Amino acid sequence: MISSKPVRGTRDILPDEMKIRDRLEQKILEIYRIHGFSRIETPIMENLGLLLGSEGGENLKMLFTILKRGEKLELKQDASVLDLCDMGLRFDLTLPLSRFYSNNQEVLESPFKAIQIGNVFRAERPQKGRYRSFKQCDIDIIGDPTVNAEIELMDTTAKALLAIGLKGFTIKVNHRKLLSAIIQKSGFNPETVGSICICLDKMDKIGIDGVTQELLNKKYDEGAVERLMTCVTGITLENLEQWVEDAESIDVITQVINASKLLAKDNYKVVFDFTLIRGMGYYTGLIFEVSYGPCGSAVAGGGRYDNMIGKYNKVSVPAVGFSIGFERIINILVEEQKELVQKEKSAILFYDHKTDNIAAVIAQGDVWREKGYTINLMVMKKKFGKQIAVCDNGHYEGFMVFGRDTELKGF
Amino acid sequence: MISSKPVRGTRDILPDEMKIRDRLEQKILEIYRIHGFSRIETPIMENLGLLLGSEGGENLKMLFTILKRGEKLELKQDASVLDLCDMGLRFDLTLPLSRFYSNNQEVLESPFKAIQIGNVFRAERPQKGRYRSFKQCDIDIIGDPTVNAEIELMDTTAKALLAIGLKGFTIKVNHRKLLSAIIQKSGFNPETVGSICICLDKMDKIGIDGVTQELLNKKYDEGAVERLMTCVTGITLENLEQWVEDAESIDVITQVINASKLLAKDNYKVVFDFTLIRGMGYYTGLIFEVSYGPCGSAVAGGGRYDNMIGKYNKVSVPAVGFSIGFERIINILVEEQKELVQKEKSAILFYDHKTDNIAAVIAQGDVWREKGYTINLMVMKKKFGKQIAVCDNGHYEGFMVFGRDTELKGF
Repeated sequence: MISSKPVRGTRDILPDEMKIRDRLEQKILEIYRIHGFSRIETPIMENLGLLLGSEGGENLKMLFTILKRGEKLELKQDASVLDLCDMGLRFDLTLPLSRFYSNNQEVLESPFKAIQIGNVFRAERPQKGRYRSFKQCDIDIIGDPTVNAEIELMDTTAKALLAIGLKGFTIKVNHRKLLSAIIQKSGFNPETVGSICICLDKMDKIGIDGVTQELLNKKYDEGAVERLMTCVTGITLENLEQWVEDAESIDVITQVINASKLLAKDNYKVVFDFTLIRGMGYYTGLIFEVSYGPCGSAVAGGGRYDNMIGKYNKVSVPAVGFSIGFERIINILVEEQKELVQKEKSAILFYDHKTDNIAAVIAQGDVWREKGYTINLMVMKKKFGKQIAVCDNGHYEGFMVFGRDTELKGF
Repeated sequence: MISSKPVRGTRDILPDEMKIRDRLEQKILEIYRIHGFSRIETPIMENLGLLLGSEGGENLKMLFTILKRGEKLELKQDASVLDLCDMGLRFDLTLPLSRFYSNNQEVLESPFKAIQIGNVFRAERPQKGRYRSFKQCDIDIIGDPTVNAEIELMDTTAKALLAIGLKGFTIKVNHRKLLSAIIQKSGFNPETVGSICICLDKMDKIGIDGVTQELLNKKYDEGAVERLMTCVTGITLENLEQWVEDAESIDVITQVINASKLLAKDNYKVVFDFTLIRGMGYYTGLIFEVSYGPCGSAVAGGGRYDNMIGKYNKVSVPAVGFSIGFERIINILVEEQKELVQKEKSAILFYDHKTDNIAAVIAQGDVWREKGYTINLMVMKKKFGKQIAVCDNGHYEGFMVFGRDTELKGF
């Protein structure tokens, strides 16, 4: 007997949720578009060499790879994944965007403001709310080295989140260069910056005492740990100069946060958060993340990655991106807003199973569709009263019976 | 040097085409929805056993399969694809729908009217207009054994095609049972029906003489070939009884074609076509296909497949489906309708690169966005006249300069 379950770590999406997803995705897309971003699409598969050669970090361990076909496949005991496979499923939308930009640069506007909405794939250990196939909604600005790119991205992403009904979220902002400079100034070696960041990233979960203990357990210099923790406790956007000498980075983060606060009004918060890390290795400047109360983890994240796009043609192309994690948001909104499923302007047109004029039934449906209604045709069952009761499930505002009613009746 | 091309047989979709695709996909979805169909979604990956155990026919030779991960992968010289891989990419939307229905049946309306819009994957030999990843827009009615299901599907699909601007198409209809009965009555063995169909399918390309010759070359009985060809030439919807005794099937196809003609008015044609075959092995009753002049092959196709859905729970569940081949349609429409790219209500707001008030620039954009405009922010270049000329590319109706204009100017 064949199982009818979807593959491990994925799921089927049912009609009610799908309706909500479609509506919210359209709203996000609409906000992105009216801000001058253009949607593009790349295949879900990329050449394996491209994926493996990227700075995907942990994501590379979670690649789904596609077996070579036909004669290209040669089996041997010690075959590597590159011997067996020639493609893989994309694990994010940033790497494909880099390839896309390089492939199509000459016909794109400059700066290029891209929208990408699509699924990405990671063979993560399945757990509640985490899937192996999940949707991301990304915007990126390629070719603008100024802080205006960051400000525009944060503004547009925030407007998209507001448009789909998310309220009271916070955009946290940090700067990779400040982070790295302060860690080193505290007395850590440059090559340990990555490991220190992994510890700092746990601040949310284990608090300052936990992080301190973990750093000490890892045998880092006590003085350095103490200096770093003093900084973590005391650092603010206003006193940055006390902790680090990098006027340019300080100017960048100050400008971005101040402009974004102005744009946020009282709709959402924008804060400096020195313990914000973001996993990806490719960020080079500002990094940002949206946190939302009811959700443990971030609902959106991004940053500047100036060294990635140029890779293919060996020129440096500045780029900033901001990605909304669609699945997380949907989970929250579906639970919060039951009324997201709408029954307004949706009705059933019942007809007798013995009708020899289904064309006339369809035509009556069309009359109402032209008034903006969704009309579902259904055959009347013998126990019509019972059938009606079942149909009064919150999906329809009313019904008609062909040959009997020309107006809608409520349930 | 890493290539920046997308993987073989796939392509990048650029902003202009993507805008058209999004709009047309939304129109198709909207038509489907107002006819009472509900969208669902399944993962692009399915268990390999499920895919290989299906009646996918030729498509099974074109599967993309996904390598097992971690310890599950055991390499040996004679490893089969099932040893190496545990999943595959879906090659159509019908098989996943069958699995979905079986997995979620108890929470779905009955009959269940499904919408699926998504990409499917086949490792076909790449050629012009044929891709290895392509989008299909499917509707299916599951649980309705009557001809009403066929009539509704054909009507809804035709309305969707009309809505996106396709004009003058023809829906061809045939019946698998009539086809099979007539082939046998002509004197062919039941087990040769499949091969005969493959020959008949070439009627479009090589004509009746070509098909006759091919059948004779294959050493089929001359009398049988002659009787079949006489039938092919003479058969019409009105004289079906002359050729085959199957009152039920004749009634079904007559009802469907007559009702569909009524619904078609003069918007499109509905015809009986005895040489329509459709490749898939799983069809059990009516089959249909949409042909459109400028396009060599079918732009949509489908039929009844009553024995597939029940497979998982060993009950027979009637089902009919109709699938629009989105890529083919897009290719046609993009070529036919240049005006599909719209510049109305789209404008640029230029600003000086030295501005220290990007928030105010964004706010001026918002004023116009609230009037329904798409506003793209751009930094003014030194040679502004030249920049303006470049921007007059058919994407924008006008522009403003921040701090100077509060009204739109044309190019």
